[in-house]
Amino acid sequence: MFKVAIVGASGYTGGELLRILLNHEKVEITDITSRQYDGIAVHKIHPHIRDSNLIFKNKSVSDLDADVVFTATPHGTSMKIVPDILETGAKVVDLSGDYRYHDRAVYEKWYGIKHSDNLESVFGLPEIYRKEIEKANLVANPGCFPTGAILSSYPLVKNDLVDRIVIDSKTGVSGAGVNPSSTTHYPNIADNVNPYKISAHRHTSEIQQELHGFDDVKVSFTPHLVPVNRGIQTTSHSFLNDENIDITPEELKKLYEKEYSREYFIKLMDDGEIPHLSSVRGSNFVHIGGFEIDETGRVIILSAIDNLVKGASGQAVQNMNIILGIKENIGLTNFGLHP
Amino acid sequence: MFKVAIVGASGYTGGELLRILLNHEKVEITDITSRQYDGIAVHKIHPHIRDSNLIFKNKSVSDLDADVVFTATPHGTSMKIVPDILETGAKVVDLSGDYRYHDRAVYEKWYGIKHSDNLESVFGLPEIYRKEIEKANLVANPGCFPTGAILSSYPLVKNDLVDRIVIDSKTGVSGAGVNPSSTTHYPNIADNVNPYKISAHRHTSEIQQELHGFDDVKVSFTPHLVPVNRGIQTTSHSFLNDENIDITPEELKKLYEKEYSREYFIKLMDDGEIPHLSSVRGSNFVHIGGFEIDETGRVIILSAIDNLVKGASGQAVQNMNIILGIKENIGLTNFGLHP
Amino acid sequence: MFKVAIVGASGYTGGELLRILLNHEKVEITDITSRQYDGIAVHKIHPHIRDSNLIFKNKSVSDLDADVVFTATPHGTSMKIVPDILETGAKVVDLSGDYRYHDRAVYEKWYGIKHSDNLESVFGLPEIYRKEIEKANLVANPGCFPTGAILSSYPLVKNDLVDRIVIDSKTGVSGAGVNPSSTTHYPNIADNVNPYKISAHRHTSEIQQELHGFDDVKVSFTPHLVPVNRGIQTTSHSFLNDENIDITPEELKKLYEKEYSREYFIKLMDDGEIPHLSSVRGSNFVHIGGFEIDETGRVIILSAIDNLVKGASGQAVQNMNIILGIKENIGLTNFGLHP
Amino acid sequence: MFKVAIVGASGYTGGELLRILLNHEKVEITDITSRQYDGIAVHKIHPHIRDSNLIFKNKSVSDLDADVVFTATPHGTSMKIVPDILETGAKVVDLSGDYRYHDRAVYEKWYGIKHSDNLESVFGLPEIYRKEIEKANLVANPGCFPTGAILSSYPLVKNDLVDRIVIDSKTGVSGAGVNPSSTTHYPNIADNVNPYKISAHRHTSEIQQELHGFDDVKVSFTPHLVPVNRGIQTTSHSFLNDENIDITPEELKKLYEKEYSREYFIKLMDDGEIPHLSSVRGSNFVHIGGFEIDETGRVIILSAIDNLVKGASGQAVQNMNIILGIKENIGLTNFGLHP
Repeated sequence: MFKVAIVGASGYTGGELLRILLNHEKVEITDITSRQYDGIAVHKIHPHIRDSNLIFKNKSVSDLDADVVFTATPHGTSMKIVPDILETGAKVVDLSGDYRYHDRAVYEKWYGIKHSDNLESVFGLPEIYRKEIEKANLVANPGCFPTGAILSSYPLVKNDLVDRIVIDSKTGVSGAGVNPSSTTHYPNIADNVNPYKISAHRHTSEIQQELHGFDDVKVSFTPHLVPVNRGIQTTSHSFLNDENIDITPEELKKLYEKEYSREYFIKLMDDGEIPHLSSVRGSNFVHIGGFEIDETGRVIILSAIDNLVKGASGQAVQNMNIILGIKENIGLTNFGLHP
Repeated sequence: MFKVAIVGASGYTGGELLRILLNHEKVEITDITSRQYDGIAVHKIHPHIRDSNLIFKNKSVSDLDADVVFTATPHGTSMKIVPDILETGAKVVDLSGDYRYHDRAVYEKWYGIKHSDNLESVFGLPEIYRKEIEKANLVANPGCFPTGAILSSYPLVKNDLVDRIVIDSKTGVSGAGVNPSSTTHYPNIADNVNPYKISAHRHTSEIQQELHGFDDVKVSFTPHLVPVNRGIQTTSHSFLNDENIDITPEELKKLYEKEYSREYFIKLMDDGEIPHLSSVRGSNFVHIGGFEIDETGRVIILSAIDNLVKGASGQAVQNMNIILGIKENIGLTNFGLHP
Repeated sequence: MFKVAIVGASGYTGGELLRILLNHEKVEITDITSRQYDGIAVHKIHPHIRDSNLIFKNKSVSDLDADVVFTATPHGTSMKIVPDILETGAKVVDLSGDYRYHDRAVYEKWYGIKHSDNLESVFGLPEIYRKEIEKANLVANPGCFPTGAILSSYPLVKNDLVDRIVIDSKTGVSGAGVNPSSTTHYPNIADNVNPYKISAHRHTSEIQQELHGFDDVKVSFTPHLVPVNRGIQTTSHSFLNDENIDITPEELKKLYEKEYSREYFIKLMDDGEIPHLSSVRGSNFVHIGGFEIDETGRVIILSAIDNLVKGASGQAVQNMNIILGIKENIGLTNFGLHP
Repeated sequence: MFKVAIVGASGYTGGELLRILLNHEKVEITDITSRQYDGIAVHKIHPHIRDSNLIFKNKSVSDLDADVVFTATPHGTSMKIVPDILETGAKVVDLSGDYRYHDRAVYEKWYGIKHSDNLESVFGLPEIYRKEIEKANLVANPGCFPTGAILSSYPLVKNDLVDRIVIDSKTGVSGAGVNPSSTTHYPNIADNVNPYKISAHRHTSEIQQELHGFDDVKVSFTPHLVPVNRGIQTTSHSFLNDENIDITPEELKKLYEKEYSREYFIKLMDDGEIPHLSSVRGSNFVHIGGFEIDETGRVIILSAIDNLVKGASGQAVQNMNIILGIKENIGLTNFGLHP
């Protein structure tokens, strides 16, 4: 059994890591830390996790004894503790934004936080960076919106088909975290659709980093909060460039099949089939569909993920499995919880 | 008191017409017809409308005695009865798609129904066609998606600012009507976001008719069904043309103020304020916001309407008020039901 | 036009008072006060109320110029200001719990607040206390749960049919108010049913005061928070006493018809018809149904109200109409917003 | 590996059996039958189950090759096929109501179906009938409401504490099955609470069979449909008999601990902790809480289950594990999906 620890386990992504890892046959959880809840049983915070052996501890990261440590800590906090964790010999999967950027200046601009180190990290999207992750000591787990957005549009830019991409995403409220606010107040969410940060959400920069390095593709992003607990539904509107204006939907789909047919966690929908959040709820799968082109040359690609699983903790465990050299889907084989 | 009648009053738009007209101080409802529910009290079908005087009748449209008749009948049915209603001397507000198109061929292509007459009709969007509606005998009440989409993008095309518009709309389930289906089955809607007819919804043609007559603007549309009862939230992504690439958000908003400041039912949001469905729920108001431009030259405009009110029955009553020459907002002054 | 003022207009009940009163043909709003939002336009707090003339003011209650003042203030605050308002000659409808109890000691026990005056007040349930309200200077608007519970069980106790009543109520989240908390955090409400204060909710005492004065009837109450915005659905389980064990459902319903047939706002359901929250949403109507008796002698009575309207602000306006001697339903004739 | 087959796998309980069994390390699925979907891949019906090897087949039950067969067939259909399945040597877990009653006359009265056989069956509630299930050839999996109701009230009647029990249950919509109807139409469910069959739901008889055999306890039941996908929240209102009127909440809870402390799937809540549907969502756990007594001698017990798991397919797999003599929780160790 490998040993794993979770730093900052009191939020939703911490709860999801526990839920997944407690059913993972190759690991044991040695520590879950929380400054705020020191000495508290885990079910007091995560009422569904009823395992009497799990107690939050306020423990120094230097004292952790683990093969892999998950840092489910806020942006800006991870960079303060990750260097010390790496010192212990553990490998790290960080769920914050701190290590996602090739260019620290981009991070500093969008997060408004000065970066404090130059550690080498790998962007933890296994379907694109698997080989790099295998050798990494520090994996930066991608953001929830970028996971759905990048995977759904990547074949378009890799094959140089489009010159502009507009990502219109609809996210469940769990993405806002465990702390209540006016934004997450039930009467403000129910029966509403709330666009926010419509022209400048920070995840735009993460999507841009991965998508327009390929070419001079304009990438835009607008998120919406919808009355859903879990899940991100992404509608990607892209515009064929002049060289590819005559591509057919069948040719388009073939490029996706070529890219993803060997990926365990990516399922391409049948013709006419729409990806649904309920089909991936609680699972690490990504459903990708659409593959249509309208009369104006717009390509429509759809994707569905669970923001807390493939968009966070499930992907973190997938990264852990790769780092540990074990089968990539261990602990992650559950299908979605529909209905 | 003016006399009004409703043909096909058993669906959601019929229920809304009743709800609104029963509180309208200038009209009385003389007839509500339904073939299926002949002799049935209205509350058996619309459990909220508890007025013992209202009974559905299976009555020939030629026998209606009304100043204005609302036809809340299916596409293809309206054209079979509207000519006879006009013969009685009544004016007609038709809620189907039958009379919305300048070019009958476009209707026939998108609706797959052969059109049977050449009656002159006015597209019933008062904020654009008020003068024509005043003189009309037959008003074609716009579709729900087009109402939100056209009003939010109209100033962009009127001022020739953009060369492409992508309308990404999120609609409540009441838009699918009163009849149950797998699409509207609660477990398929709750906690889901369902895109549908992603490249070729028939409302595309109605939006295109109104928006790209101005110039060679490419107009695309993708609707999504969200777990909401009422309301359409529209996010319009448009791309500034080369001549206007330097327009500022302030200048953009001024154009909207110029167009809409005298409109009772259109409210422009303050800076940073997002239009919410709950703010217009049950009301005839349209909230328009956004007015942002991102670094790629994308303009983001947001709108919120109640699909059954401004998107259907409320707008129909607004059209009726105009036709009757009475104050345009009578019966429609309620603000939205928030929360 | 009568003049009305609202003290503490920034919460949900304040918003509802505004929504209703702005469409009330016999009153004008002279003042809306808020200490916190002095000088702020009303739509900044109530985004649906877009009336540029309404500005919150931090004004002393002694300076109000109104025929009727609504105090939508917290429990314990009302008693500090109501005496001063009465001094101005205005009549008061208080929406807090401060003046609902005949016996101040009961209030002090359940609210944990020492009462500071002995003003005479009337319990503002017009269907029971209309005559007293007509003459009152101070009306204590009932709590939301008690309104649904008392009206649905009153004929049972008035006719001495039962010896025990268990009220199992399901309330929408707007009842928890406008301030966010863990309780109202969307992910804690959605797809959940949350019983709370299961054996000792303070509204129990208010229900008991009105119901078991008649006789030695045991009254119990358990509320549940359900994923609904507005509305309280009440299921009343009562047990026939020995003298009435043979009463039939038809006889039972007749007693309800006798009690309520002349009440504008109370609608008794047809046989087999269930009261629905959506049928009363946004309206001041009460739907009462059930009237069944099971094989154990249990009577089941159901009721549905909108907690913010008949359960708060609508009933307050109904009380105002009675106090002012005008028609009781002015401003309150809208049917519910279904769907 | 044991072999299992599912007859009637196209409904929600069939989908749940597949979801659970595909992650069960000791069984393989040899057949899934459906008359309607013969030859169809499973994901066409259950879009979340994306396993290309699973195809529905219209196969005679006599040709099944399995150690255990699940019959997820309608009431009245199971009795037509179960005898033939038992003939093949397989053991059967039946999810219909056909074999739940000791007294066939009770079944015939409540289901309106004449029973066709006298096969011996065991009521498949392992926490009460584990020893009988171990030896059974035919296990009648309990109904969803009865599972939550019986487990929460069983210690009360076993210890002869109460003389009347009123079960007020709130169920998610998945309990109504996969076929759309007006009852499950999204606009009729959202923002509503719908009581139904308020005095005579057929599950009453199943609850009564298990609870009032002990003594002359009056048992009543009223279900409500709430806007939730999965889960049944049960509030049990019981009345202490004269002999036990002085029992304390602490003594009450001790009786529950005594009964259930060794049960893997039953979790008793801490003091003041409320069972939540989200804590058991997708899991086989039962959360029981409350343990309060109000001033009228009413005992309040609360329970939460997932109606499709502990209330149907999970419990069926639990029964299968017992029949097969393997560890009772294999395939069922996942905690709930919160949030």
